[in-house]
Amino acid sequence: MIAVDWGGSRLRAYRLDGQGNVLASRQGAWGALECGQRFDEVLVATLGDWDDSAVVMCGMIGARGGWHEMPYLACPIGIDEIARGLQRLPGGTSDGRDAWLVPGLRCAEGNATPDVMRGEESQLAALLDAMPAGEFRVCLPGTHCKWVRVRDGRILGFSTSMTGEVYALLRHRSVLGRLMPAGDDALDGDAFDLGLERARSPGGLLRHVFEVRTAALFDRLPPSSLSSFLSGLLIGHELRGTLEGSSAGRGPVHLVGSQQTLEPYARALARQGMEVERHAEDLVARGLHGIWARRASSP
Amino acid sequence: MIAVDWGGSRLRAYRLDGQGNVLASRQGAWGALECGQRFDEVLVATLGDWDDSAVVMCGMIGARGGWHEMPYLACPIGIDEIARGLQRLPGGTSDGRDAWLVPGLRCAEGNATPDVMRGEESQLAALLDAMPAGEFRVCLPGTHCKWVRVRDGRILGFSTSMTGEVYALLRHRSVLGRLMPAGDDALDGDAFDLGLERARSPGGLLRHVFEVRTAALFDRLPPSSLSSFLSGLLIGHELRGTLEGSSAGRGPVHLVGSQQTLEPYARALARQGMEVERHAEDLVARGLHGIWARRASSP
Repeated sequence: MIAVDWGGSRLRAYRLDGQGNVLASRQGAWGALECGQRFDEVLVATLGDWDDSAVVMCGMIGARGGWHEMPYLACPIGIDEIARGLQRLPGGTSDGRDAWLVPGLRCAEGNATPDVMRGEESQLAALLDAMPAGEFRVCLPGTHCKWVRVRDGRILGFSTSMTGEVYALLRHRSVLGRLMPAGDDALDGDAFDLGLERARSPGGLLRHVFEVRTAALFDRLPPSSLSSFLSGLLIGHELRGTLEGSSAGRGPVHLVGSQQTLEPYARALARQGMEVERHAEDLVARGLHGIWARRASSP
Repeated sequence: MIAVDWGGSRLRAYRLDGQGNVLASRQGAWGALECGQRFDEVLVATLGDWDDSAVVMCGMIGARGGWHEMPYLACPIGIDEIARGLQRLPGGTSDGRDAWLVPGLRCAEGNATPDVMRGEESQLAALLDAMPAGEFRVCLPGTHCKWVRVRDGRILGFSTSMTGEVYALLRHRSVLGRLMPAGDDALDGDAFDLGLERARSPGGLLRHVFEVRTAALFDRLPPSSLSSFLSGLLIGHELRGTLEGSSAGRGPVHLVGSQQTLEPYARALARQGMEVERHAEDLVARGLHGIWARRASSP
């Protein structure tokens, strides 16, 4: 089968063997929100000569305005129930494949309106299969970072923080970004830690971020360290808003993402005395395989 | 004399009589950060046929990278000391006027690095002259909102919140902005109040702003009300970060700005049981006149 993680700005396809091992992977040209509704054309071009007949997709491709709108299933939920929620894409693809979509999840954990995820449930499916009994916390950093509580193979609930998107806006589009050199942001651990520390003080995020500017103005930090300070401020506020007053769970926090994305989270959690265990983001392929393997016989 | 409020993105010039009354006002073509260092050319074109010989300027025009870098004077400070800090622009303008710049202010009120202002001190100067004895709080909303404590004619300290800039980024550049109709944002009082209320709950700003998206997804708010909800969330967090644990001062909160800018702040403060008094933003002209009138004889 072929597993497809098709988010708003990115398409990744994985060709899997019968045990869910990745044989090959490809990056598509367009995210689900960027391709102007040319979903079939983009997918067919990406899969090309892979001759597998089944395609299982997760992510924004199943959102309203995506290829085929999928419901949000309520938490708590386990993999079997997610698998029962798979839906077949009407008509399949133009190159004759059977395509399936994974539902999204919603939960009402302490929120006025339910929180939602699309795509992360498939990464979580891979973790759930491998975890021992007990309650754990999983963090999936990104544009919209998800913090998830899981217990005994079920997803209990989660919350979303817009940390990645707010960072990108302040880094590249704000008056703060003008103070920072262009190019990749290397993590300056000391400046990052300073941001974490400031985030624990009174004043709130909207005041704290202005300190990126004054730190530059009064030469407290070199320009190349300002992005790390900003990152520390934001992740510090995210941890404060997410961990305070919430049950801790046992064992390490499970972090899912690329090496570069996880580095600041692992550092921030370590400074709070929390253990972490890292997982590569392509575990989504194994998760989609697990969901697919458990589906009821197709309708 | 001519009073000039020259911020990063805006130039406003006022022609004043001997008592500081505004005879005429003009908007210049370029802000101080937009004009590519052509400060003299832009100012001369703006002032045109006004034949006054003295020009007094405040704002980002005195920042590093502006026309002539002015120091930040330390708080607490009164108008006389600000007036003594006026500096003459070397060489004047190319059309033969004497030009002066007002210094900025800094304060270390509970911050790791000093906070700063440029321009707002000249608006405050007008208020200080008119206020009775006692301690007051002044709020100057905008891209970077300033909250100022004043007492007996002196500026004690202040803090900056990036509320306006973060609102603009999330409104126009984020995934949340795509959910909102284009055009002017009319204030929906109920949606705004809902945002204020959510801001008082646990979770933090980075989580709360994602609720703009879920409120749209689950039809809790119509698209035209989402910007008001976002505004309520941000101003609610600003008030929480600014007012909590800070001495309240007596009497109303003095709000300085345009009618449209002040409306949500007046509403948010009223809902916390605080009285407000509004002041138009062009009081900067009277403030610059007051500073100019009190200057020591020119060097």
